[in-house]
Amino acid sequence: MDFNHIALVGLGLIASSIALNIKSKKNRIKITGYSRTKKTREEARKINFCTVCDNYEDCIKEANLVILCVPVGAMGDTMEKIAPYLSKSAIVTDVGSVKESVILEVQKKLPKGVFFVPAHPLAGTENSGPSAGFASLFENRWCILTPSKNVPIEIIKKVKFFWEQLGSNVVEMDAKHHDLVLSVTSHAPHLIAFTMVGVADEFSKVTNSEVINYSAAGFRDFTRLAASDPIMWRDVFLNNKDAALEILGRFTEELFTLQKAIRKKDGEYLLKYFERTRKIRRSIISAGQDTAEPNFGRKE
Amino acid sequence: MDFNHIALVGLGLIASSIALNIKSKKNRIKITGYSRTKKTREEARKINFCTVCDNYEDCIKEANLVILCVPVGAMGDTMEKIAPYLSKSAIVTDVGSVKESVILEVQKKLPKGVFFVPAHPLAGTENSGPSAGFASLFENRWCILTPSKNVPIEIIKKVKFFWEQLGSNVVEMDAKHHDLVLSVTSHAPHLIAFTMVGVADEFSKVTNSEVINYSAAGFRDFTRLAASDPIMWRDVFLNNKDAALEILGRFTEELFTLQKAIRKKDGEYLLKYFERTRKIRRSIISAGQDTAEPNFGRKE
Repeated sequence: MDFNHIALVGLGLIASSIALNIKSKKNRIKITGYSRTKKTREEARKINFCTVCDNYEDCIKEANLVILCVPVGAMGDTMEKIAPYLSKSAIVTDVGSVKESVILEVQKKLPKGVFFVPAHPLAGTENSGPSAGFASLFENRWCILTPSKNVPIEIIKKVKFFWEQLGSNVVEMDAKHHDLVLSVTSHAPHLIAFTMVGVADEFSKVTNSEVINYSAAGFRDFTRLAASDPIMWRDVFLNNKDAALEILGRFTEELFTLQKAIRKKDGEYLLKYFERTRKIRRSIISAGQDTAEPNFGRKE
Repeated sequence: MDFNHIALVGLGLIASSIALNIKSKKNRIKITGYSRTKKTREEARKINFCTVCDNYEDCIKEANLVILCVPVGAMGDTMEKIAPYLSKSAIVTDVGSVKESVILEVQKKLPKGVFFVPAHPLAGTENSGPSAGFASLFENRWCILTPSKNVPIEIIKKVKFFWEQLGSNVVEMDAKHHDLVLSVTSHAPHLIAFTMVGVADEFSKVTNSEVINYSAAGFRDFTRLAASDPIMWRDVFLNNKDAALEILGRFTEELFTLQKAIRKKDGEYLLKYFERTRKIRRSIISAGQDTAEPNFGRKE
């Protein structure tokens, strides 16, 4: 590891998982952490995955890797707050799910001579907060780096190696392209899950507990995504607005085509469509991106 | 068990799971089975979960419980085919995901004096065919019966007891209400999953393997539902058209409201919505309808 002092700004699922992984390796890397929220700091102190500081300065001042682990909408402000305390040799990175707007906001506040290597670890669960973290969260997961052209290759390499040490497969990508790809594989699916769960919630007011009781017939799968951190997701949609609306627009077109096929009883169209979508899962399983176990192998 | 000879018409996931469960209890119940498709009969014979017959007559003629395990759209035809061979004491039941249309089609062809007790076990996986079955599929899952008023209570009780022996919790419901509730908890979520996977498939033609590789960020959850049996689902939508379109209509309204909130950058609306949907998952976990393990406890 090229860093001997890592500072975590924000102490949620991602920050605590990073710290727990590094600690599990019993090396001598110092890890400091800070969260604006007192309750979060107290929760983090109890778990004891890092030295929890009570202000930005103590957290940042001697660190040579600073990881912004706050919601996407708070990245710019957080960068402004930490800028005065950054050591000259520090590298700044982040873990935000949106990259173009984060780069724009962070670069504005970045002190001269300090480099920012934007990163997005594609890892997480539906749980949030410091207690939700675990050391193996990044194992065999992708981490996407979207550095600007002015960042020297040896700086990028250090951040790449950092994520590899956590178990991730690291790739580089253009920030705008990242935001479009992730709007397909993450942002749109989440919004659709939130929507479906909202519809069912409205409906369940009429039918009492039926929606809950009979959820195993499909609906429950949506509730996992729709249980993800609300603040994180609000910020994702506000900061990746255009790409999200673009994919949601395509989704609506497609949904209307299928609705029309149902209305017109066009069984052949439906059958061909469903045969096509079935194949995608096989590709995902072959690529090692999901379990082949029926029902995700779950026990309930 | 009130039955000593059970006939399975159709030999997919549900039929094989029923047979494997009964066989696992080492009782002397005779189980015969038939599928129109030769390949399916051969596959079933290899697994050896029942006596596979080569025609309807051999399968049906001595059975006192006949279970229609064919896709919803084939129920009426299948009932017509088996009618001549039904013993007078036989009870007919089914496992279809839609109830009103199945009742209508089956009743038309039902011989006088034979009773039909429609059933829908809320159990299954994304896999299909005889090899996909397993004995514990129905354990702790709901099974909904939707019998007409003319069916004697002692007949209903026998079918109820049958499903309870397989491990299910059995409830009775009006057929029309069943179709509406299931369109919320199962049919609409499946159509939406098919749609999202279709959109991503179109998109992936542009981006090669990126949609597959980065699917763990949310999208992969949809691919499980969208990998379900295409014929079964075609039939569900064609036979529960009105309820499905009603819920999809509500879904579209809700999606448009959320899209508008994104476009107008109404963070407060989004946050409140996401906080509300988060709660639903907790109710589902409390009701024992899903695992509390992060990421469904999956290993990849």
